[in-house]
Amino acid sequence: MENEKLPKRIENFSDWYNQVILRAELADYAPVRGCMVVRPYGWAIWENIQQALDIRFKASGHVNAAFPLFIPMSFLEKEKEHVKGFSPELAVVTIGGGQTLEEPLVVRPTSETIIGHMYSKWIKSYRDLPILINQWANVVRWELRTRLFLRTLEFYWQEGHTAHATAEEAQEETLRMLETYADFAVNEAAIPVIPGRKSSAEKFAGAAMSYTIEAMMGDTRALQSGTSHNLGQNFAKAFNIQYLDQNNILQYCWTTSWGLSTRFIGAIIMTHGDDQGLVLPPRLAPIQVVIVPIFHNDGEKSIVMEAVNRVSQSLKDFRVKIDDRSELTPGFKFNDWELRGVPLRIEIGPKDVANESVILARRDLTGKEGKSIILQSNLAEEIKLKLDSIHTHLFEKAQQFRDAHIFDPQSYAELQKVVENGWAYSYWCGDAGCEQKVKEDTKATTRCIPLNQETGSGKCIVCGKPAEEKVYFARAY
Amino acid sequence: MENEKLPKRIENFSDWYNQVILRAELADYAPVRGCMVVRPYGWAIWENIQQALDIRFKASGHVNAAFPLFIPMSFLEKEKEHVKGFSPELAVVTIGGGQTLEEPLVVRPTSETIIGHMYSKWIKSYRDLPILINQWANVVRWELRTRLFLRTLEFYWQEGHTAHATAEEAQEETLRMLETYADFAVNEAAIPVIPGRKSSAEKFAGAAMSYTIEAMMGDTRALQSGTSHNLGQNFAKAFNIQYLDQNNILQYCWTTSWGLSTRFIGAIIMTHGDDQGLVLPPRLAPIQVVIVPIFHNDGEKSIVMEAVNRVSQSLKDFRVKIDDRSELTPGFKFNDWELRGVPLRIEIGPKDVANESVILARRDLTGKEGKSIILQSNLAEEIKLKLDSIHTHLFEKAQQFRDAHIFDPQSYAELQKVVENGWAYSYWCGDAGCEQKVKEDTKATTRCIPLNQETGSGKCIVCGKPAEEKVYFARAY
Repeated sequence: MENEKLPKRIENFSDWYNQVILRAELADYAPVRGCMVVRPYGWAIWENIQQALDIRFKASGHVNAAFPLFIPMSFLEKEKEHVKGFSPELAVVTIGGGQTLEEPLVVRPTSETIIGHMYSKWIKSYRDLPILINQWANVVRWELRTRLFLRTLEFYWQEGHTAHATAEEAQEETLRMLETYADFAVNEAAIPVIPGRKSSAEKFAGAAMSYTIEAMMGDTRALQSGTSHNLGQNFAKAFNIQYLDQNNILQYCWTTSWGLSTRFIGAIIMTHGDDQGLVLPPRLAPIQVVIVPIFHNDGEKSIVMEAVNRVSQSLKDFRVKIDDRSELTPGFKFNDWELRGVPLRIEIGPKDVANESVILARRDLTGKEGKSIILQSNLAEEIKLKLDSIHTHLFEKAQQFRDAHIFDPQSYAELQKVVENGWAYSYWCGDAGCEQKVKEDTKATTRCIPLNQETGSGKCIVCGKPAEEKVYFARAY
Repeated sequence: MENEKLPKRIENFSDWYNQVILRAELADYAPVRGCMVVRPYGWAIWENIQQALDIRFKASGHVNAAFPLFIPMSFLEKEKEHVKGFSPELAVVTIGGGQTLEEPLVVRPTSETIIGHMYSKWIKSYRDLPILINQWANVVRWELRTRLFLRTLEFYWQEGHTAHATAEEAQEETLRMLETYADFAVNEAAIPVIPGRKSSAEKFAGAAMSYTIEAMMGDTRALQSGTSHNLGQNFAKAFNIQYLDQNNILQYCWTTSWGLSTRFIGAIIMTHGDDQGLVLPPRLAPIQVVIVPIFHNDGEKSIVMEAVNRVSQSLKDFRVKIDDRSELTPGFKFNDWELRGVPLRIEIGPKDVANESVILARRDLTGKEGKSIILQSNLAEEIKLKLDSIHTHLFEKAQQFRDAHIFDPQSYAELQKVVENGWAYSYWCGDAGCEQKVKEDTKATTRCIPLNQETGSGKCIVCGKPAEEKVYFARAY
């Protein structure tokens, strides 16, 4: 039995991506166009993402709740930018219990409207503020061109929705959650991200200001990996979210929303994966260590399996899997777990048992460089170090790749060239026409205006007029 | 500021139930008919339920995944009992992205069909079996008469779906999960349940055999609190879920499904609640201990709050909340947390600080009986004991109530009477006509044929013909 070969990443990134997902059993195509089934191995990654984010949300005072899947069509129409942005993508329920509904129900594409409606009921006074609610939910957007994890009709996400007494608090919350996403991306997923502001053209439909963390994928395209929106008073006014302040005066709230979705699994695949398949960041990997026993006869088997079970017992602090499938060769198993991106592999054969050691192989380093012999007595400590080392190595590798593909073009002609295989970081005057021209000429869009850029000024890379801020231009998923 | 009074439980159970939910902020009515918003306090109970079940599922080898919300209408039609059972309750999407869909999509009422379709793709050989997948999901059933938590258009649940090589394994799995639910109900929710088999009339649409855990609510009505179905080969044949056995012969799989939903929160409310409001079982309570500081001036405040923070720090193993709201009296707070069902309350005033003690009040015992003075040095240990004691007390109280309301009527006339305020446990010949007669005469249905009943025989309570098994008759939610 031989493992099938994947397409080469450099030859056909898109095909490589799909094949990795299907062969590693992260997800599968559903029988409904554009929908996916997230298989157990993929869902286990999502569960680890959920846990890492949820603990951060709760630490900053947020609580979870659940709002309805169905939203009356009239709700969407209350915020005019919002309905303009979402109406082309709606799935609509028109029949319930065999009857045609008087008012069609939209399957939520996002929940600002229905949550706004509830907040207007719940909030009476400044004492009720802030409200800091998150929900883990499925949402539906009727996309025409779909890709597993990146863009599917139904996807899974968390959406935070908060209401505040002042504009300042809402802005603080918006940036706090952006920072939370950046911290999560870097420290859990080993993905370097650039936090920044969206241009007006790229912002969320209905937001006053949108922020994003942008990451560079292995083919240099950008992926918006999490967003945080300051909604100003737009939704508060549309839904009458008001409170009595300390002087007993009725005021509109200031609201925010922020979300991160299963699309992030696509970011993990495309940032770290290689020609052998997935490479999972250790802190999110469903299996951190796989143990492959090696033996040639029943006598060896019993000796080896005794050691395998003992070693596994000593690694209770890690997510460990013993691969004891009898019909497969060790070589097949090695390839199989490499495809599935398990960070560390332990091999134990009769020699290792005799030496009271194991062979430890890293997923992120190939050949001899990635292999070491470790005494069993020292294994747990060594694995802790190795997992941290893999995390750091993945992060640095991704950062080096990204930085090597960010360019500072000196002319518009050069910009057009560099965005074919990288990002341009350039002064932009802020004019939507210039942004649109780049998009038409190159398919690159403005990804974000980074938050902490050096102050300075220059000339817009498109029109040459004075510009105060730099922006990233890139083709994006 | 005074706390509003709840309706008395005995006078209007239904009104009491709704008011408890709204005032304790467990849930609220959504702007779409029959839908609910689960508010943070209610959702925190569900998160604790999820965690308690998920750990049990994973310990018995199950993994989580996510299947699509939308199911092609044609899928439901493949299993004829299934479609008959569910078609009156469907929500149907007919428009997507502005276009009328060629085939309408059903919003899942349950996922046997779409999961069956995927299993038929994934399963090739006996080596792929068993498949043991669960999903945490929202589902929609277009109910006409709805009640918060008990019956809503959209609700939240887990649905396990497994495929096996043999009938025996499928039956073992079905009973294993029933036992898991019973263990959860008893040991986490302090709810006594009766595991048993459903009659043919009451079984899941498409199942070969359905099992249930039945609980008695505070008004003596029954609540089906979790179900486990042996689907036989019904769905395997409808969806071609087949495998090659060890002799290379194509066989149909045997499948099961099992679910427990947010309805269980209704069971908790109606089993343990009292005239003061909720009484939450300690192991599922979002807040296990609330600390109420008591002081009359700033000097006392600083002394008391220092002790409150110190005490709170010493209780890190528990879910603790400090109620430091400044605008409310201690008396108001006591009532408020009683309404919300927090199992233990700690009161700390200046005298308690001086004595290095606290006052500890149990939610389940009123007046002096529930209060004790505990040394701060001994508090964590005492709280652990008290929470266990509350759990046991709630369970025993519910069990005594239930057993006092289960009757053994000696005639059909007596049965008709006892089911007005209790359950009848009677011999039944198994005939659907007898079952139907009871339903028509009394609104009571067969709840379950308990698994471990004494062997014996008697006469059907309805028709008088010989009967081998006893069944519970009760009016149910």
